[in-house]
Amino acid sequence: MSLSDLHRRILQALRQRRPRPASSGGRYVVSAVAAAGNDTAAKPFTAHYFPQELDHFTFTPNSSAVFYQKYLVNGTFWRRGAGDGEAAAGPIFVYTGNEGDIEWFATNTGFMFDIAPKFGALLVFIEHRFYGESMPYGNDSNSSPEKLGYLTSTQALADYAILITSLKHNLSAVAAPVVVFGGSYGGMLASWFRLKYPHVTIGAVASSAPILQFDYITPWSSFYDAVSQDYKSESFNCFSVIKAAWDLIDERGSTEAGLLQLSKTFRACKTVKSVYSFRNWLWTAFVYTAMVDYPTPANFLMNLPAYPIKEMCKIIDGFPAGAGIVDKAFAAASLYYNYTGDQTCFELEDGGDPHGLSGWGWQACTEMVMPMTISNESMFPPFTFTYEGKSDDCFQSYGVRPRPHWITTEYGGNKIDLVLKRFGSNIIFSNGMRDPWSRGGVLKNISSSIIALVTEKGAHHLDFRSATKDDPDWVVEQRRQEVEIIQGWIDQYNEDIAQMSK
Amino acid sequence: MSLSDLHRRILQALRQRRPRPASSGGRYVVSAVAAAGNDTAAKPFTAHYFPQELDHFTFTPNSSAVFYQKYLVNGTFWRRGAGDGEAAAGPIFVYTGNEGDIEWFATNTGFMFDIAPKFGALLVFIEHRFYGESMPYGNDSNSSPEKLGYLTSTQALADYAILITSLKHNLSAVAAPVVVFGGSYGGMLASWFRLKYPHVTIGAVASSAPILQFDYITPWSSFYDAVSQDYKSESFNCFSVIKAAWDLIDERGSTEAGLLQLSKTFRACKTVKSVYSFRNWLWTAFVYTAMVDYPTPANFLMNLPAYPIKEMCKIIDGFPAGAGIVDKAFAAASLYYNYTGDQTCFELEDGGDPHGLSGWGWQACTEMVMPMTISNESMFPPFTFTYEGKSDDCFQSYGVRPRPHWITTEYGGNKIDLVLKRFGSNIIFSNGMRDPWSRGGVLKNISSSIIALVTEKGAHHLDFRSATKDDPDWVVEQRRQEVEIIQGWIDQYNEDIAQMSK
Repeated sequence: MSLSDLHRRILQALRQRRPRPASSGGRYVVSAVAAAGNDTAAKPFTAHYFPQELDHFTFTPNSSAVFYQKYLVNGTFWRRGAGDGEAAAGPIFVYTGNEGDIEWFATNTGFMFDIAPKFGALLVFIEHRFYGESMPYGNDSNSSPEKLGYLTSTQALADYAILITSLKHNLSAVAAPVVVFGGSYGGMLASWFRLKYPHVTIGAVASSAPILQFDYITPWSSFYDAVSQDYKSESFNCFSVIKAAWDLIDERGSTEAGLLQLSKTFRACKTVKSVYSFRNWLWTAFVYTAMVDYPTPANFLMNLPAYPIKEMCKIIDGFPAGAGIVDKAFAAASLYYNYTGDQTCFELEDGGDPHGLSGWGWQACTEMVMPMTISNESMFPPFTFTYEGKSDDCFQSYGVRPRPHWITTEYGGNKIDLVLKRFGSNIIFSNGMRDPWSRGGVLKNISSSIIALVTEKGAHHLDFRSATKDDPDWVVEQRRQEVEIIQGWIDQYNEDIAQMSK
Repeated sequence: MSLSDLHRRILQALRQRRPRPASSGGRYVVSAVAAAGNDTAAKPFTAHYFPQELDHFTFTPNSSAVFYQKYLVNGTFWRRGAGDGEAAAGPIFVYTGNEGDIEWFATNTGFMFDIAPKFGALLVFIEHRFYGESMPYGNDSNSSPEKLGYLTSTQALADYAILITSLKHNLSAVAAPVVVFGGSYGGMLASWFRLKYPHVTIGAVASSAPILQFDYITPWSSFYDAVSQDYKSESFNCFSVIKAAWDLIDERGSTEAGLLQLSKTFRACKTVKSVYSFRNWLWTAFVYTAMVDYPTPANFLMNLPAYPIKEMCKIIDGFPAGAGIVDKAFAAASLYYNYTGDQTCFELEDGGDPHGLSGWGWQACTEMVMPMTISNESMFPPFTFTYEGKSDDCFQSYGVRPRPHWITTEYGGNKIDLVLKRFGSNIIFSNGMRDPWSRGGVLKNISSSIIALVTEKGAHHLDFRSATKDDPDWVVEQRRQEVEIIQGWIDQYNEDIAQMSK
């Protein structure tokens, strides 16, 4: 098996970028509902469907086709004003949905529920087109470039602008300030939405938004270097074991007997036919655990203990002398897949897609081209990214070629500090440095109101998770700062309105 | 003939909005070329063609079709830097083309040529898709909604972003600051471009840009009230004569004999078959003369003397007692069509389209829905605008229905002072109050760097015309302020770069 095949496999996984979680997390919903004093079994939102036009940027006959976009609403905490002119009415907090079904994101963004009572905020979570139930062509939506072609970030942002504007009219809340929130790709959307639609939102909280992971802005090796650093910082032995595992698996997997043996080692439910499956299974565990290396037990991608990398490395380091490298790597990865211990075997070749994330592959092959290389210093097999290779790969997979520099042309990113120093306002970029995506994020303040909040020990949009009693001080403080800044935006907006109406 | 028919006729003319000029103006080209010391017969620019993708916001197979977008370049004055990092290199001044062939706009934007030497600026004029030579489907481009559907402002702005970004790369001038200029619809595009693409341009000069002529932002009657006020301010008799003419023409035109008589009165080259032609001919003359009521002789739409409304009213007021209303109205309008006196008769039913403006009808029926009523107090026959009527009219004409609130959703406009008070920077909105479009413009400063420059006696993008020796002080001063502000943007940009590279 050649390395380039592995790389293709890794790239395929990268393209999907999001794992296929085995279970969805209900815990934080319960906490949010408990705060609202409702029945703990009920969802803390109601689902609605908005008639949305297919194409906002052309007027071809096809463009006016209507699909139904799902959005969730929680009005429990909303302090309604007396009418459109009522500046002191509660704000509207909108989550700009990303690449999955919106209930999953709403369930994992307890922060918005936690702070809504203080602000008297209406909560709205909007599903991204081509995910969840918001499929323009129903079950056929992913069937061809003719249909998937309408899955773009620009269309999604326009969807949000239209839906929010319409909703405010219908609620007689035209003057209510809107703050947008988003995590990961949703955070990219939130920050871009503030930049492109300042007339629809007064500010954006963009958590773990790698808006600089494009073109040549961020070093291409930074993502995998960051993952590796996470492991190395726990234990050099842990890092070295994982680094050594790939070649061994490759070697063993080169024969039928080896595949059978590996299948046993990995407790596969069915004998695995391709060595890629083992590699991909490990790769997913190590990369995604770095993303969700949270300081408290959590269940976003998988059910995991606090600081799961530390736990993985404890497993590796705890093996007796002379134990096999592959056994160690497997045992560590098992933490990711089976922390609760209820899996008796693993489905290595089919992870499923319970949160409807499959559209990301298309997005990564059109707009969201994030070049990533894997350096020799990382704990993964080295890989060199080329735009040509990516393009050919995408053409083979989807019949489409990426526009690799479109994102920076449409949204910027190059010299962002220079560009936004005197343009725009009211954006929080929050990042946790344990999260490998942080390297593509905005990590320094750009202006007095375009702010970077960085935590050394935070992980992927940790700040957006529900508060728990075990939260370390630094995340409590990060969230406090966010609340304070958001309050400042709203106060300033109300002052501006009051001043102008004098 | 019913009034509603007239109104439809007026609306059709409104839809086109731009007149069909009888001749293009070469005067300002000559002046610019003379400044550059070149042969006066040559054009002061070279034409180039950029491969542009049809649809920037989808990835359907059709979206990647390529058409060639025309742009003009003048490098005579450009002070090239030593390379990409050279901050002190001369800026790039880009005209964001509007609804006509780009050579016409370049020829009538002498201001850019006039100030280029001082700035050491490269001049670039980009043609708007579906105008001039930039036809995505060649001669078939206007044949159906399937093709015309790609004629939108959002696509045009993305065209500009891509072309400018590419051009800077090719010129090794990535760090050169770009300032965009535009007049009328081009001014709307320039200001929107600064708001949407701050990473591509450091500032915008938007002359006579009616970005608030949408939805319910500007009173719907303001345009025709402003035209009427222009005439009334010269002479109440002048205003009254024009106001009285419409019904008389209607009455006379209701018989064959009357049409024949009117044809003689209007010196029609061929006997006119419809009374609408007389009304439209007059309407065009009175409305467009208000737009171009320049303080010096000019030839933008037509060859006209200084302050042509004053001249028209002199004609009306100079008739002997007892002269006919219609004779007076015709004589005044003749100034617009025949100031040079070389027309022996008038083609009342076919004005031609020498500048390729026909695409505007489509744009006014899709995005650019500017509601206008005509009040009883105006000098035009009253008319009530309805969105329903507009929609039906457009469906009949083009098979398309407008999205009447899209512009304000995509670009804003409502409460623009509140929205942009703390967002965005570096836009000049210049307006002259003689221009009826000024009423839909930004007439007050929004922030310290989003500035309104208003002249009481200015007309449609007067500031963008070449300087002449007869220019009144107030336009000289307006242009001086513009130069000073632009210089401030460039200086600040260079300072920011210098500071960041320390």
